[in-house]
Amino acid sequence: MRKRIYLFSEGSKEQKQLLGGKGANLCEMTSMGLPVPFGFIVTTATCHEFFQQGKHLPDGLIEEYNIALKIVEEKMDTRFGDPENPLLFSVRSGAPVSMPGMMDTVLNLGMNDEIAEGLARKTNNPRFAYDSYRRFVHMFSSVVLGIKDEVFETILSEYKKANQYESDVEMKAEDWKTIVQKYKDVANIPDDPHQQLELAIQAVFLSWYTPRAIVYREMNHIPETLGTAVNVQSMVFGNFGDDSGSGVAFTRNPATGEKMFYGEYLFNAAGEDVVAGIRTPESIEKLRAEMPEIYGQLFQIQDTLEKHYRDMQDLEFTIQEGTLYMLQTRSGKRTGQAAVKIAVDMVREGLIDEKEALMRVEPDHIDSFLHPKIDPKASKTVIAKGLPASPGGVTGKIVFSAEEAVEVAKTGESVILVRHETTPEDIHGMKVAAGILTELGGMTSHAAVVARGMGVCAITGCSDISIDYQKGIFTTKDQQIFKSMETITLDGASGEVMSGEVAKVAASSSDDFQTLLAWSDKYRRLGVRANAETPEDAKKAREMGAEGIGLCRTEHMFFDADRIDVMRAMILSESLEERQKHLDQLFEFQKADMKALFEVMDGFPVTIRLIDPPLHEFLPHTKEEMEGLSKRIGVAYQKIRKQVDTLHEINPMLGFRGCRLSVVYPEITRMQTQAVITAALEVASTGVKVIPEIMIPLIINVREIRIIAKNISKAIKDILQPQGLSLRYHIGTMMETPRACLTAQRIAPVVEFMSFGTNDLTQMTYGFSRDDIGKFLPQYLEQNLLDDDPFVTIDPLGVGKLIQNAIEVSKEQKGDIEYGICGEHGGDPRSIQFCHDVGMDYVSCSPYRVPAARVAAAQAALKEK
Amino acid sequence: MRKRIYLFSEGSKEQKQLLGGKGANLCEMTSMGLPVPFGFIVTTATCHEFFQQGKHLPDGLIEEYNIALKIVEEKMDTRFGDPENPLLFSVRSGAPVSMPGMMDTVLNLGMNDEIAEGLARKTNNPRFAYDSYRRFVHMFSSVVLGIKDEVFETILSEYKKANQYESDVEMKAEDWKTIVQKYKDVANIPDDPHQQLELAIQAVFLSWYTPRAIVYREMNHIPETLGTAVNVQSMVFGNFGDDSGSGVAFTRNPATGEKMFYGEYLFNAAGEDVVAGIRTPESIEKLRAEMPEIYGQLFQIQDTLEKHYRDMQDLEFTIQEGTLYMLQTRSGKRTGQAAVKIAVDMVREGLIDEKEALMRVEPDHIDSFLHPKIDPKASKTVIAKGLPASPGGVTGKIVFSAEEAVEVAKTGESVILVRHETTPEDIHGMKVAAGILTELGGMTSHAAVVARGMGVCAITGCSDISIDYQKGIFTTKDQQIFKSMETITLDGASGEVMSGEVAKVAASSSDDFQTLLAWSDKYRRLGVRANAETPEDAKKAREMGAEGIGLCRTEHMFFDADRIDVMRAMILSESLEERQKHLDQLFEFQKADMKALFEVMDGFPVTIRLIDPPLHEFLPHTKEEMEGLSKRIGVAYQKIRKQVDTLHEINPMLGFRGCRLSVVYPEITRMQTQAVITAALEVASTGVKVIPEIMIPLIINVREIRIIAKNISKAIKDILQPQGLSLRYHIGTMMETPRACLTAQRIAPVVEFMSFGTNDLTQMTYGFSRDDIGKFLPQYLEQNLLDDDPFVTIDPLGVGKLIQNAIEVSKEQKGDIEYGICGEHGGDPRSIQFCHDVGMDYVSCSPYRVPAARVAAAQAALKEK
Repeated sequence: MRKRIYLFSEGSKEQKQLLGGKGANLCEMTSMGLPVPFGFIVTTATCHEFFQQGKHLPDGLIEEYNIALKIVEEKMDTRFGDPENPLLFSVRSGAPVSMPGMMDTVLNLGMNDEIAEGLARKTNNPRFAYDSYRRFVHMFSSVVLGIKDEVFETILSEYKKANQYESDVEMKAEDWKTIVQKYKDVANIPDDPHQQLELAIQAVFLSWYTPRAIVYREMNHIPETLGTAVNVQSMVFGNFGDDSGSGVAFTRNPATGEKMFYGEYLFNAAGEDVVAGIRTPESIEKLRAEMPEIYGQLFQIQDTLEKHYRDMQDLEFTIQEGTLYMLQTRSGKRTGQAAVKIAVDMVREGLIDEKEALMRVEPDHIDSFLHPKIDPKASKTVIAKGLPASPGGVTGKIVFSAEEAVEVAKTGESVILVRHETTPEDIHGMKVAAGILTELGGMTSHAAVVARGMGVCAITGCSDISIDYQKGIFTTKDQQIFKSMETITLDGASGEVMSGEVAKVAASSSDDFQTLLAWSDKYRRLGVRANAETPEDAKKAREMGAEGIGLCRTEHMFFDADRIDVMRAMILSESLEERQKHLDQLFEFQKADMKALFEVMDGFPVTIRLIDPPLHEFLPHTKEEMEGLSKRIGVAYQKIRKQVDTLHEINPMLGFRGCRLSVVYPEITRMQTQAVITAALEVASTGVKVIPEIMIPLIINVREIRIIAKNISKAIKDILQPQGLSLRYHIGTMMETPRACLTAQRIAPVVEFMSFGTNDLTQMTYGFSRDDIGKFLPQYLEQNLLDDDPFVTIDPLGVGKLIQNAIEVSKEQKGDIEYGICGEHGGDPRSIQFCHDVGMDYVSCSPYRVPAARVAAAQAALKEK
Repeated sequence: MRKRIYLFSEGSKEQKQLLGGKGANLCEMTSMGLPVPFGFIVTTATCHEFFQQGKHLPDGLIEEYNIALKIVEEKMDTRFGDPENPLLFSVRSGAPVSMPGMMDTVLNLGMNDEIAEGLARKTNNPRFAYDSYRRFVHMFSSVVLGIKDEVFETILSEYKKANQYESDVEMKAEDWKTIVQKYKDVANIPDDPHQQLELAIQAVFLSWYTPRAIVYREMNHIPETLGTAVNVQSMVFGNFGDDSGSGVAFTRNPATGEKMFYGEYLFNAAGEDVVAGIRTPESIEKLRAEMPEIYGQLFQIQDTLEKHYRDMQDLEFTIQEGTLYMLQTRSGKRTGQAAVKIAVDMVREGLIDEKEALMRVEPDHIDSFLHPKIDPKASKTVIAKGLPASPGGVTGKIVFSAEEAVEVAKTGESVILVRHETTPEDIHGMKVAAGILTELGGMTSHAAVVARGMGVCAITGCSDISIDYQKGIFTTKDQQIFKSMETITLDGASGEVMSGEVAKVAASSSDDFQTLLAWSDKYRRLGVRANAETPEDAKKAREMGAEGIGLCRTEHMFFDADRIDVMRAMILSESLEERQKHLDQLFEFQKADMKALFEVMDGFPVTIRLIDPPLHEFLPHTKEEMEGLSKRIGVAYQKIRKQVDTLHEINPMLGFRGCRLSVVYPEITRMQTQAVITAALEVASTGVKVIPEIMIPLIINVREIRIIAKNISKAIKDILQPQGLSLRYHIGTMMETPRACLTAQRIAPVVEFMSFGTNDLTQMTYGFSRDDIGKFLPQYLEQNLLDDDPFVTIDPLGVGKLIQNAIEVSKEQKGDIEYGICGEHGGDPRSIQFCHDVGMDYVSCSPYRVPAARVAAAQAALKEK
């Protein structure tokens, strides 16, 4: 027969699957000789049996744990159910994976009227005995019997009211005794401690399927099959008097990572009082002052535990009548900065190696080094909540248009640009804004993508606010009105919008941070490039460690105020000659920009995507704007109006854009190509190493590439040949339609690289418009119809399958294709893992995500080994 | 060595691949002992050699054809290059597949000054000799040397002007002789007949790659590898005098299919004069009256040929000085009505069997039985009369060029293309035109042949009108002027052109039509259903033979004037209670509609798609409309305005629609389900057999189906259980996102049917918005970037691959899923072939396409065998 019960002296920390995390650690501490109140564990395997047998405890279980119980009695020198010398238990759940707050607990189990009486006698502390009794009755009723907490709270508050007590402190032993009887009138608590234990074990098992446990597991991808163990541990009491108390401690500072024993302690309090935060605890230093011997023992234990576990530990302890008991140890949660510092320090201390250090840091933690943050201790008034689209904490004045943003920013004011959603026309406003807040759009909406790229704080999809541009206000859900130029604060990490100014803490990079990134580069296989168009972005990208530009969106260069009119005149041209004239002007802009990029990226590749968005995105939309343009470029208003109408699209995402523009207007592609190549030649002549990669977007089949590549090659030849020059360049394509992926074996022979544009690919594979999913995506995530936002993490079953298949079949055709990804997913750790697994060569993401991507890429490589 | 030259006596009709269609048939007729001017054929294989060898005739070819030439000389008793008794040749192309008008021809080859002189002497007809000579010089210059026709036309017209001639008839022998010399000043024609022949053979080969030949091949999916043969045939002359002439004939009436010898004849005219439509020919009856013996011989030959070929033949013949020569026979193009009648008649006559009859009819032809005709009782103003070249009755706007036709048709207008005559360059305009009207040309002119093939109404040879392209008008005999964009009506059955719009009657089927469809049903495996929402459509669908409704778009029912406001009020509801109130009203509408459909579809399944379009499609968009709505339903204008703004989408195709609505508004799905089931129960209680299939649209994964199917089942149970009733229903899904197809194995277990929505699937797989592709799709087709419009014919490599894979992997999971298609492709013959091949169970298309689909499904099944 399989062993279902483990005494604390029988298990070890390696047995988390069977004993749960908490139980395994209790066993480990017991084996180490640390002072742990003794007890036993019912295994997770028993939990399976319980559910397999229709929610019945398996035969023989009770007999088995009764044997264990005897041993506990001996060890603790008390007896379960003996009024003279009672043994009480805490019964807790303990899953193999930490599920904080998800599972229910019963304390002081083993109580009844007689035993409470005996405990009062034994401890000579009737108030303690009846307070403990009422806590038991309440918890048992709530957890095991399913009676609502309110019932007991009402009884207690009515009693206090009737007796004119203001707080629990005024309650005396007799008062608690009365309360216990009142509680017991409501709840049918068995008097037999053994029956209590049996019911409590069942209740722990049953709690595996409470709705909140199910939701937590789904949210955190925890398999349902794990099950929970039950920890049955002897009670010790921190609320026994002033020589008692409970505390929580960390072996290092979880906020900063500093190597110092760090903790909080409550005198004369049970453990749950510390966790619940009802009283504000004292620093652990107070304990050191008051009980130096105990402190010394605790300090020794924490040092032993950290070295034993080779990680920062989060401890729970209780002192009963001057004796220290350890109740829990586990790896402590920590901030990003702390995670990096601890990992690097521990390598220096020889506790772990570089690889283990790398696996200890979450890539998302890396971001915290790059942005100022809202001070977690600051007082704040949250007025709305949206999606945490781009991290950082900023305060500024509300503006409702890009123009206003530019104007106000000029005066030196920090501004927050508030829009329904943003478009490429808002770029100049977004550039100067300290933060961006949009009512619509998801984590990968235009606003989110651009903001992350710029490292600007942004909150998107904030449906709690309702903007009225005309009145220049937004209204919150509870009808508060915020006007233009009022001050608000955004927390891009939490998605909270706050009124007024809120205190912040500055961003700080560190040597540890740089050390960790250097280790990442040592172990990763994937290259990391950045998406960048401006020299500033390119410089930032290099600073962050990017090894080239994976996506340069050439059209962004044409949205600048001094260029957009030339672009517009080009679009409005009625003849090829006229268009060529404007293209010649655009050529100069493009060439200058490309030169700057090539210079910054000396020795690294620059992937230049040909013009991609539908042309109507460049044209003005209001009558006023069109009239202004008419005056500036001397084209009749009616003509502009007509072209705007002609170019209007019902579904621009699926419209006249990408390489379709190159097919219809080969002269635009010719101009772009010649600008790139001329820039490359000029920069190369100064000794800089240029590696231009021209990328054709949005293809649906190989024929498009053939015809466009021919145009590109001809345009390049027309520059090189007359000058007798040569230059190495690459032509490749962006794989972003399902059809491109489905026909990759045909595309392979004509390209040198394939870069997966997972934003569009996800849009088309799902039929999800990034701009429009705000109306249903939240419900989809809530109802668990999707595991993740597919625009944040690559969907492995749909989009991922297309990518994997495309790589496989194209590799069969041609071995030396370079594969990359340049969608927003390029900066997402789980997606980077995917990219590594399917054999890509590099990921490309916004400059500020480069460090996180380097770490994620290293972790993917280390996991493989 | 491979034989490169075949005498007409050496080949047979089975050798089309090697000898081309025309050549193979000339051989066949020669073997049958029919009077064919003798000649030889250069094989298509030689064409390959020619191109493989860098456009050089292969070694030994000239020697080989010179041997054949000797035999021809003997047979014809004339000598090539002999002025005293000259043999002249026509040199024509002849591909394995008919490419009418695509390839160039040289007539009267073997001429020079001396031979013309000799021919004049021999025939005692100098005018004929020099007319023939100038025709040769013109054609050789144009076809072989590439000199533009205008050069010669200008020389001729200037000459006539100088001599005050009004027409060619006034030109005398000396005039033609002078013209020849003027032509020869421009063109360097070799005097050596052998050199002429060599150059002409090369020119025929080269013409395989003329732009219009390439375009025609692409349009008609003719592989480039076929190549062309060269037919070198002795000349006979129809323009020798009044006992000569040329004609074209059909063994049955190509317009109606009637079994009667049918043809046109031009006295004293060369064959090209008939085809070019320069003069309007006489009926063949005129020949019967004037040359009864020749007519008798011709009649006998046509009868022999039809029986021999077992198909209706299209013949060309020439009579020279009272002797009949056969120049061509081939299967004749015919109208849809004729195709059906001929096929069914020939089965009756024992010439072919049912299966062959089915393969003889193009599914698109079936449509002509369904085209409306001019109401015989309608009042009308006939402005002109021409030849009834292709049946049907249509009304449209006048356009004078193919380009204009395309442009106006894009706006959704029906257009009538009006031309002097049409050429292959007009094809793209003819394709989009509702009707074609030509001033010149007969029943077998280019316009007539092409229009019949396309099933487009056409009137040719309408000399009552006189077109002025420059002014954009045509003038009728009585000087009425009709301008571009004026409305006219054509009666393709009578040849009448009418001003304005004229009433039409719906098409009527025939017994033959029904017979053919009955045969289709016998041989096809695929079911054929119809897309229908109204009882009228459903009735029409049953009439057309549909075996159920494959797609009932429930939202269409809510667009009716008396319902839309209820729908709008539902959308504008602010609480569930309010929404439920409106849903209760919609329930009644939906129930009534569904009852009507179930009644019509007694015994056949009805697939009901849950609401699909984004909700904003139901809301008004202009201020006026919103104000009107506000008054009617008593909701504040501001509220309507706000909701319209909120629901606005950037890319509605990828937005909040399909099952996403069912997820967010389960109450709508509950209402729809209960309406369907209540209707089904009520109708079933009257003895009608109902088979409701509820279809969930636009899914991306199995979880959506699970949650919605649960809602549906609950809604149904809530109706059935209280009444103690039961009802068999099916739940399935529409496969229309790439992701649904990619995860079909997961979807399989929870559905009873999968219906592929190929419209959306194509949009997403390509990233093509159907509403927006007009700006680039024409260029894509023109530049051969796409073989077909993917919205017309299923793309086998992308969309098709997704479908095929989905069927394969889902079948592995569950054997009894029913597969269908309900996109527009369901009515396209090539797509139906695809559906058959991948193992679908049925196709669903618009009611009028059902007959064509039945035939296409039968052909797919027959091809398999």
